Amino acid sequence: MDNTSLLQKKRTAYQPSLPSILNDLNHIIFKPVPIKEPLPSLKPLFPKTFHQKAYSLEKGSSTEKKSLKIGVVFSGGQAAGGHNVIAGLFDAVKLFHSNSQIIGFLDGPGGIIQNQWVELSEKKIAPYRNQGGFDLIGSGRTKIETADQLASSLKTVQEHGLGGLVIIGGDDSNTNAAILAEYFLEKGCGCKVIGVPKTIDGDLRSKEIEISFGFDTACKIYSEIIGNIARDALSAKKYYHFIKLMGRSASHVSLECALATHPNLALIGEEKKSLSEIVKEIADLVCRRAEAGKNYGIVLIPEGLIEFIPEMKELIAVLNQAATLQMEDVEKHLKGEQKAFFASLPEKFKKQLLLDRDPHGNIQVSQIETEQLLMELVKKELKKRTEAKAFKGKFSAQEHFVGYEGRAGMPSNFDANYCYALGTLAALSVHNGLTGMICSIQNLKRPPQEWRLMAVPIVHLMHLETRLGKEKPVIQKALVDLKSEAFLVFAKARKSWEIDDSYRYPGPIQFFGDLDLTDSVPFSLK
Amino acid sequence: MDNTSLLQKKRTAYQPSLPSILNDLNHIIFKPVPIKEPLPSLKPLFPKTFHQKAYSLEKGSSTEKKSLKIGVVFSGGQAAGGHNVIAGLFDAVKLFHSNSQIIGFLDGPGGIIQNQWVELSEKKIAPYRNQGGFDLIGSGRTKIETADQLASSLKTVQEHGLGGLVIIGGDDSNTNAAILAEYFLEKGCGCKVIGVPKTIDGDLRSKEIEISFGFDTACKIYSEIIGNIARDALSAKKYYHFIKLMGRSASHVSLECALATHPNLALIGEEKKSLSEIVKEIADLVCRRAEAGKNYGIVLIPEGLIEFIPEMKELIAVLNQAATLQMEDVEKHLKGEQKAFFASLPEKFKKQLLLDRDPHGNIQVSQIETEQLLMELVKKELKKRTEAKAFKGKFSAQEHFVGYEGRAGMPSNFDANYCYALGTLAALSVHNGLTGMICSIQNLKRPPQEWRLMAVPIVHLMHLETRLGKEKPVIQKALVDLKSEAFLVFAKARKSWEIDDSYRYPGPIQFFGDLDLTDSVPFSLK
Repeated sequence: MDNTSLLQKKRTAYQPSLPSILNDLNHIIFKPVPIKEPLPSLKPLFPKTFHQKAYSLEKGSSTEKKSLKIGVVFSGGQAAGGHNVIAGLFDAVKLFHSNSQIIGFLDGPGGIIQNQWVELSEKKIAPYRNQGGFDLIGSGRTKIETADQLASSLKTVQEHGLGGLVIIGGDDSNTNAAILAEYFLEKGCGCKVIGVPKTIDGDLRSKEIEISFGFDTACKIYSEIIGNIARDALSAKKYYHFIKLMGRSASHVSLECALATHPNLALIGEEKKSLSEIVKEIADLVCRRAEAGKNYGIVLIPEGLIEFIPEMKELIAVLNQAATLQMEDVEKHLKGEQKAFFASLPEKFKKQLLLDRDPHGNIQVSQIETEQLLMELVKKELKKRTEAKAFKGKFSAQEHFVGYEGRAGMPSNFDANYCYALGTLAALSVHNGLTGMICSIQNLKRPPQEWRLMAVPIVHLMHLETRLGKEKPVIQKALVDLKSEAFLVFAKARKSWEIDDSYRYPGPIQFFGDLDLTDSVPFSLK
Repeated sequence: MDNTSLLQKKRTAYQPSLPSILNDLNHIIFKPVPIKEPLPSLKPLFPKTFHQKAYSLEKGSSTEKKSLKIGVVFSGGQAAGGHNVIAGLFDAVKLFHSNSQIIGFLDGPGGIIQNQWVELSEKKIAPYRNQGGFDLIGSGRTKIETADQLASSLKTVQEHGLGGLVIIGGDDSNTNAAILAEYFLEKGCGCKVIGVPKTIDGDLRSKEIEISFGFDTACKIYSEIIGNIARDALSAKKYYHFIKLMGRSASHVSLECALATHPNLALIGEEKKSLSEIVKEIADLVCRRAEAGKNYGIVLIPEGLIEFIPEMKELIAVLNQAATLQMEDVEKHLKGEQKAFFASLPEKFKKQLLLDRDPHGNIQVSQIETEQLLMELVKKELKKRTEAKAFKGKFSAQEHFVGYEGRAGMPSNFDANYCYALGTLAALSVHNGLTGMICSIQNLKRPPQEWRLMAVPIVHLMHLETRLGKEKPVIQKALVDLKSEAFLVFAKARKSWEIDDSYRYPGPIQFFGDLDLTDSVPFSLK
């Protein structure tokens, strides 16, 4: 029995479209680009890498290429295209010199610490070209933070004699890459550390990082599913579908999927509405749709919504400080509005807030079933309105959580091309002796031929944040900018999606056919 | 803002591949084919339609085509391709005669009873060609059963002067079509009634109905999702994913998706394992995988599993007879093994069994969260084994219900072609004066050009079943045949999927490119 689908086989043959600059690797140079200084407070933490310039890849006559040995690792959650970063990296170093080697550290940064690795050959990589997942070498969430972990990592790269280490990860993993780059320099180790921006959440974003890889594919898969459910809702006219979308810290995924599917309502956490406002907004929508004879609809909910709701955020902060609080003591502990707010929550969620604590005694916000909470509160509100004869419709709701199915799907052409270019850029960066840099590809809304490639010091993206009482250098997660073009387009259109059903059905990602279909870019980029 | 996606637009231009016989509608005849008599017990219920022959569409010189007015209706849950049945029907009657008309009854059979309809023009149909959903005219679950409902339906078709009524539905809707055909004949009404086999569940299946439409697309969408989740599981190595698949009465969807994705375990209700066997099977799998260093995996669960579990079926029957049973009285009421079985269930499910009753006092089996029940029982079993030092791995599980996203997706080429041919066949059947027939297209595993088209008396598919104490004519739902080739292929291969990860990633449905990719047929057909 054949364990490989026909599409898997056909996709391995796809040749990523390249930025023009990469057509001839022998005639490119990194040209320094002056950039704004990083935050001064970061200087003591990054004495060796603080003053670095950014570099732009330009045409020119470069030095002869040498053999390289580079390690690569996946860090954190899956994102479509990861395998193409490795393919781009591998092809580039092999083009530099046939003796070049790529070794993959297994199951995340823990593989560096414990020196668990595999050498990657063309034979090993070939079946993974343009495929989803991180399964060629696995991924993991271990961070390289403690002195011991840093020392073990140094030992590993020295044992292998690595000229470079490419860390494919999100905000924290790239912070880690910067710390490791600084540490290696401090210890006199020549291994260069290069970060590659990955996360389906789309919150690793800045002027230099237009979008992280995996966001496009995930949103396209989610939008296919949302469109299908919307079409079902419109056909059956029976249910409200509350669809929660993956993405903890920011609502980029919800915004992108809303632009792709035109739901009746898409909540954006960054608008920071109160819980009662949100419930009222949904209930109002249900009432107005009922008046139009419509007792069905589509509501998109970002996974991280709950942490944006001001009262909830405050409540969680207070409850986190009282880890052992019992239900009967809550009333005494909470005051005024907070007490009333807590009392207004359905029993199940009160219990979730009090009981489901992590090992540090903190409430596990990700475990709170926001879509159910909203469904129950809306149901309660509509019951009130029914009794007051203000609502005569029906409200029957289905909940969905759309998440895991979007992280490891086959990368869209956009992500396949983007990742291959990121991998090539990482190889070039190591070859040119850059370290503590993140691969930055710009002009992404244009065809790949026109993309601009840069290496930007990671420190440049950082600031200091207080975490667990300590000041730590971190890359700030980029929230949805309520002044961005994507949000403004959404804000302007959403009213028209409320009552008239303007659902848009993107359908499944297409890999063959016209370029305008196969190579579309995220709406959020436009 | 454009509410139509590029793929929607491009798909409207798709020309379905036709069975060769349909290339020239002016030179085909229906040739009678002798078939086995229906069950004698059905004779009193279908005096006028009992003795009908089946008909095969063959080359020949047919009579001049006349203008037709036909009504069409969707009945029950969405299935991909429904719009193409209408398109095929419309194009055929317009080809017969430019004065022909198609009217669509709105929101299901209720639209016939209440005479809610819309005339369908090319302009109305065009944007729905090769698109998912039933939203052109909506669907609904009302049945035409009572004397009043039958009379209203007769009135409607007479008012419109309909020559035919095409009912697109599952087993019950086709039973309805047969009853309506008989009723119209009895009342001297010339309106022909033709059924079209629809259901994503795949349980409307017989020698004549190789597969219902919508099954292929739904399974392909589910398989895309399962494959993506499997790839995520293999990359992160953290979770067991328990994926429940839509399909109440039979496990065809699970079987098809298992053949497409090679999960570590796929439960098939028709194997009728006991709950303890199933729990043991999963727990054994988890233990053996843990020994191989794997604390992750994929388990497929058919939605209807619970009704196949013998102890559960018996328990439900007993509890249904005691609608008001309180938790404290259960122990007294149940005896022996049943008592022990009930006691072994997690509290939450005991409550679901006792409290969640439908208006008739019956347990709402569909509300029982089978995937959660299994997860909890497996967790309990593994805890026991851990204490007995028989299990040293980790077990962390995620649940998924994959359902609504597969019913209204864009039809695969298989479903688009199949449905268009079904619609054409329905038009030809009406034109040739056939009634009480279901459209039967055979040889489906071959390219459309080679398909054989027949009209088969619906009575031929029926038997008598006792429902709510009354004998009723019904089309028996086809369960997974444990001797079918599809099941045997699965049964032979599944052992090899348990420990070695042989996940197969079908990816998203492709509409462009090589025929072997775009026009693949369900595994279950092979």
